[in-house]
Amino acid sequence: MSLMTSAVLPPHDLAAACGAALDDLRARTPLVQCLTNEVTTNLVANALLAIGASPAMASVPGEAEELAGAAGAVLVNLGTPGPDQRSCVGPTVAAAAGAGVPWVLDPVAVGALSVRTRIARHLLTERPAVVRGNASEVRALAGFASAGRGVDALDGVDAAVPAAEALAWLTGGVVAVSGPVDLVTDGTTAVRLAVGDRLLTVVTGAGCALGGLVAAFTAVTAPFTAAVAASTALGLAAERAAPHARGPASFQVALLDELYLLTGDDLAARVASAQRVEVPA
Amino acid sequence: MSLMTSAVLPPHDLAAACGAALDDLRARTPLVQCLTNEVTTNLVANALLAIGASPAMASVPGEAEELAGAAGAVLVNLGTPGPDQRSCVGPTVAAAAGAGVPWVLDPVAVGALSVRTRIARHLLTERPAVVRGNASEVRALAGFASAGRGVDALDGVDAAVPAAEALAWLTGGVVAVSGPVDLVTDGTTAVRLAVGDRLLTVVTGAGCALGGLVAAFTAVTAPFTAAVAASTALGLAAERAAPHARGPASFQVALLDELYLLTGDDLAARVASAQRVEVPA
Amino acid sequence: MSLMTSAVLPPHDLAAACGAALDDLRARTPLVQCLTNEVTTNLVANALLAIGASPAMASVPGEAEELAGAAGAVLVNLGTPGPDQRSCVGPTVAAAAGAGVPWVLDPVAVGALSVRTRIARHLLTERPAVVRGNASEVRALAGFASAGRGVDALDGVDAAVPAAEALAWLTGGVVAVSGPVDLVTDGTTAVRLAVGDRLLTVVTGAGCALGGLVAAFTAVTAPFTAAVAASTALGLAAERAAPHARGPASFQVALLDELYLLTGDDLAARVASAQRVEVPA
Repeated sequence: MSLMTSAVLPPHDLAAACGAALDDLRARTPLVQCLTNEVTTNLVANALLAIGASPAMASVPGEAEELAGAAGAVLVNLGTPGPDQRSCVGPTVAAAAGAGVPWVLDPVAVGALSVRTRIARHLLTERPAVVRGNASEVRALAGFASAGRGVDALDGVDAAVPAAEALAWLTGGVVAVSGPVDLVTDGTTAVRLAVGDRLLTVVTGAGCALGGLVAAFTAVTAPFTAAVAASTALGLAAERAAPHARGPASFQVALLDELYLLTGDDLAARVASAQRVEVPA
Repeated sequence: MSLMTSAVLPPHDLAAACGAALDDLRARTPLVQCLTNEVTTNLVANALLAIGASPAMASVPGEAEELAGAAGAVLVNLGTPGPDQRSCVGPTVAAAAGAGVPWVLDPVAVGALSVRTRIARHLLTERPAVVRGNASEVRALAGFASAGRGVDALDGVDAAVPAAEALAWLTGGVVAVSGPVDLVTDGTTAVRLAVGDRLLTVVTGAGCALGGLVAAFTAVTAPFTAAVAASTALGLAAERAAPHARGPASFQVALLDELYLLTGDDLAARVASAQRVEVPA
Repeated sequence: MSLMTSAVLPPHDLAAACGAALDDLRARTPLVQCLTNEVTTNLVANALLAIGASPAMASVPGEAEELAGAAGAVLVNLGTPGPDQRSCVGPTVAAAAGAGVPWVLDPVAVGALSVRTRIARHLLTERPAVVRGNASEVRALAGFASAGRGVDALDGVDAAVPAAEALAWLTGGVVAVSGPVDLVTDGTTAVRLAVGDRLLTVVTGAGCALGGLVAAFTAVTAPFTAAVAASTALGLAAERAAPHARGPASFQVALLDELYLLTGDDLAARVASAQRVEVPA
């Protein structure tokens, strides 16, 4: 499998690359070092295990950066930026960047809250491979006006397109906007993914889990493919989980089970049916 | 629907007001800003989503108070008062009080442990709309001798009545004591609620989830109604969950599912059957 | 029931003692004070409730040590050594040791990460009743070369025998090494336990839950018996949970349910069939 690192694959190849990436992830079980948040860290860890990665949640100064340089990928989730995280997020991201380890930024509630907004903007200079957020977070991070309220996206994915493109140009990376339809863009080409289930919005940390999955995939494939593979994997697992669910908690249980049961072929087929590529004029 | 803010509704109206409050909560999805604890924060967030609120867990100085003034309600759970929480709990409660946002105090393990006991007593001057605890916590917070051990209530609800009344008079608010039979009092009139299931005692954080639900209801109704609605909602969900459970973990899953499935009519009917009002002589 | 505190029981008596310890635990519901980690603290608390103990997660300086001296047992899990834990772990362990309360060390990811490795080595002078870790953690803690990577054990249980024996001699306590086959040693006599299910490796915190169970059992029985009882209880619950599971999340739910349903007789019978004692020559 040949992977391009800075360009987007044509639709058929993208679907195949996503399926191959999942098989690869399971074969290699990359270590994903996570600075994450206290509300959802257990779910993120379990989502990483279910997809085939090995999660590490070292968030203490001196340890976080130690692991970042040796990991397959790094996740920075700003949901609860406590004292240790505020101290070590800079060195951790610098260690990842310095070692060529891809890192993913999940700017939880950026825009609505000031401390994390300053941290997130500062981190952009270290060029995240992928920024993953909802429409309000992506708009706010790019400096656009945002209607976000805490972790809720009150802006639609369409409203985030210019901001996502601007962010992608600024970082040289990929931006993934999650919503009823997900959007992945590198600033030039965008893919929309019609996949998922409404119950994802009543489970705390579904977005955080997606951030973790994106990071896991960046350890084995190019950022654009990683973002598409992760978004579709979570969405497909949600679609398969919904019939097993009586409500949000049984849905979450089934969601993790289905992530675990997903195969590369399943994922490739669903990427093929979910994607709508928008090539620039 | 007409709501009284400082008096207790007669039984029939109270049941109807609880049902209407749930419908209202679902229609308005109020933001509930939570300072909560690291053991149970995920469960509290999921309980809030299940009942129809929008949880925010901003616990960093500078952010916690930022959100408190703009939220529909604020929850302060003292289960693990870490360094950031110790710094920001005072300003957060002051911001809520200053903006007229109702706030709820959950004095987890107060009495048994000294740091949180001092914090909790100090916070009382900011007049919580509702204090929600078990009998031992309520006794300890009111300055009565308590047999509490960690988070366990070793005192019965009856033993907490004078303490609950004293606390209600001190704060000008409502006190909700949870146990095999729940008690809600404003210092003058008390309602007892015979609702719930014994499995609630083997799930960590069931009390914390109740604190979150009380806060959510205070965003849409008067404190007394909010405490009755939340206690009955959790108890009714527990009763419906028990037949689906093989043990405490499947019970917790079913409990959140049932909270999500609860309707205003369900809740009104169960309040009507569960309540026993004690009017002062 | 007569319990020896410094020697190992013969096989038949060990099985019976484990069963009796579980009955005892349920009758006495000992308070287990836990310094644990933010990824898995909810699971540890629920596992303690399921087995019949009363968990407390007081991790604030001033409170942690307050509770340690009054608890039935203390757990120190170093998975996320945040600022408060770094401050209070020393005084907590000293309070336990000073009061004769048994304490259990779970050296999560020791070896792979520097801050916790220093903390763990320092704590050994306070003589933990049981050290519970995977093979890589036990090797690293004893000063042997380790292939550990984050929380993954990349060394087999056999490779940890000399390190486990050395640690047991150093601390005067018991060392429990978990893996496909668990090992419990006091430095002289070892028991191997062939019990468990592979799905335990895809649930985050299964090892942490085991650390909690070991601590709970030390409140009611001798350390060697405690380690055997806890390892077998978790392994047997896993065996019973597996047929109910579609994947790792439904497995975790069933695992906690089965811990709750376990009886003393069940446990005694499984210890009898799982154990292989190695008496020194």
